Amino acid sequence: MATDPTTVVSADPSVGSTRAHGVWVPALTPLNATLEADGDRHISHVRWLLAQGCHGVTLFGTTGEANSFSARERKHVLEQTLEAGISPERIMVGSGCSALSDTVDLTRHATALGVDKVLMLPPFYYKGVSDEGLFRSYAHIIERVGSAKLRILLYHFPRLSSIPLGHALVERLMTHFPDTVMGFKDSSGDWESTRSLIETFPDLAVFPGTETLLVDALKIGGAGCITATANINPAGIRGVYDSWRAAEDDVSELVAEIANVRQAIQAHPMIPGLKYLVAEMRSDPQWRVVRPPLVELDEDTGAALATQLAGLGMRPDAC
Amino acid sequence: MATDPTTVVSADPSVGSTRAHGVWVPALTPLNATLEADGDRHISHVRWLLAQGCHGVTLFGTTGEANSFSARERKHVLEQTLEAGISPERIMVGSGCSALSDTVDLTRHATALGVDKVLMLPPFYYKGVSDEGLFRSYAHIIERVGSAKLRILLYHFPRLSSIPLGHALVERLMTHFPDTVMGFKDSSGDWESTRSLIETFPDLAVFPGTETLLVDALKIGGAGCITATANINPAGIRGVYDSWRAAEDDVSELVAEIANVRQAIQAHPMIPGLKYLVAEMRSDPQWRVVRPPLVELDEDTGAALATQLAGLGMRPDAC
Repeated sequence: MATDPTTVVSADPSVGSTRAHGVWVPALTPLNATLEADGDRHISHVRWLLAQGCHGVTLFGTTGEANSFSARERKHVLEQTLEAGISPERIMVGSGCSALSDTVDLTRHATALGVDKVLMLPPFYYKGVSDEGLFRSYAHIIERVGSAKLRILLYHFPRLSSIPLGHALVERLMTHFPDTVMGFKDSSGDWESTRSLIETFPDLAVFPGTETLLVDALKIGGAGCITATANINPAGIRGVYDSWRAAEDDVSELVAEIANVRQAIQAHPMIPGLKYLVAEMRSDPQWRVVRPPLVELDEDTGAALATQLAGLGMRPDAC
Repeated sequence: MATDPTTVVSADPSVGSTRAHGVWVPALTPLNATLEADGDRHISHVRWLLAQGCHGVTLFGTTGEANSFSARERKHVLEQTLEAGISPERIMVGSGCSALSDTVDLTRHATALGVDKVLMLPPFYYKGVSDEGLFRSYAHIIERVGSAKLRILLYHFPRLSSIPLGHALVERLMTHFPDTVMGFKDSSGDWESTRSLIETFPDLAVFPGTETLLVDALKIGGAGCITATANINPAGIRGVYDSWRAAEDDVSELVAEIANVRQAIQAHPMIPGLKYLVAEMRSDPQWRVVRPPLVELDEDTGAALATQLAGLGMRPDAC
């Protein structure tokens, strides 16, 4: 039987453990007509994601267009989410900004509201910075926030941040802040990177950024996945997780199904593609809107994608 | 005689013209012991830069560690600068952030305080974005700010932003916003890039990001330069500009001098190197401090650099 790689203290592994694990979704951020985050659509989407089986929701990851929103806007959306009654234990907040002070601000705000898990990009404007500089960034933030409850997932997305987070840095951070630096989101898409992290750091909750690596990661002690595609396929991805945990003989067919969905979406710009699909599912064209510099999918491309996904068993009325 | 390529309506070409030109310096941002921007040191430095001949000072360019500071912090420093009596005409504000809403906020704030010239990076987190997305970003900002006085210098620094600003985008922006999109800072360091911009867009105030291209640019109609090195060599660079305008027979010797200074500094990380040198000039070690993810120059490297510059005629007590 597959053993759960993390310390589970309740039937639902996302609750009660000091380590996040399972299927997490970086929620898309719906916009209103003036390109502001739309609170009602957001809450409705988060509720649906949780109801469909996501263990938790990450607000303002890359998929949530995090870095197109100001700190003030990001804090407001978190407040709306909690005021709607969503449990802070089911929430993780992306808090890593270009500006050190913004990262401190967002991280402090989240912990003050009871949201302990933050996904933290390194500062991403200045390039070619040293591990010493990155260590000082994270150390400064942890010390300024000063919360014993804070749990950081380091966010490695070199294609967008241009700032890779290497093993030496991870080790140094875990040594200095063993209770705080708890996890790692590996959005490299590179299995060798994910495998190496899991094997090198057994105490680190490692999440690949794609469901296509979920089972492979779980098999060797990975924590789960944090994946954009869960915005439109949460039940399918949760199904794979549950089947693996239940030690079903062979989950390869289910894995192939979620991989096909992912592959269809990845053929297009990810965030506009996902927003188009949610708009279709909800019959709500406003959902297509993205913030510049992103551009929404054109009608023909979007319609073809929706048709392709319907052929893969994704129902247009799923939301 | 060298002709001034811009419309000059007063003896000092930086004043009274609708286009910025001359030698502009992206001011370093001094920090206090808690890594906050230090107002007193900042004002003192800005006054010295202007007194040494800089036509104007850019607050929060790359050199000013702009993207390590929050919008709130950046606005506060601008307010302190103006409260100290520095003329808004001598100030340009870097306002381009990753988040669209921060860029609107900073740009609106600057124009409301009478600072019309802003240096605007494109949004720089999401990569591989289209010209359409970049056009929408700039258009959204211009429309939201809604100031007829706003003058934007597009900020092209592909090595750090990873978002190049190409001719097609420049042309589209100038066509749609002819009174607003006024200039271009070309920090590519590539003369062919600068030359091509000046020749293609005669109405655009093009500033190379290095004084080594200043005279070449002026010769074909460039506006001046905006250069980090002016933080420690303002008089030298202004001297080259004035000599060229005064049609002195040969400025090549002066150009070689400022190029030697630049070359010495460029051999090290630029911002820590410049801060080390200002600290030496002012006998104020606090000036060495940078915000993470940058790291200050180590003592040996800094001392060697200072010695090298002294050999090039840079006096340690120049500030």
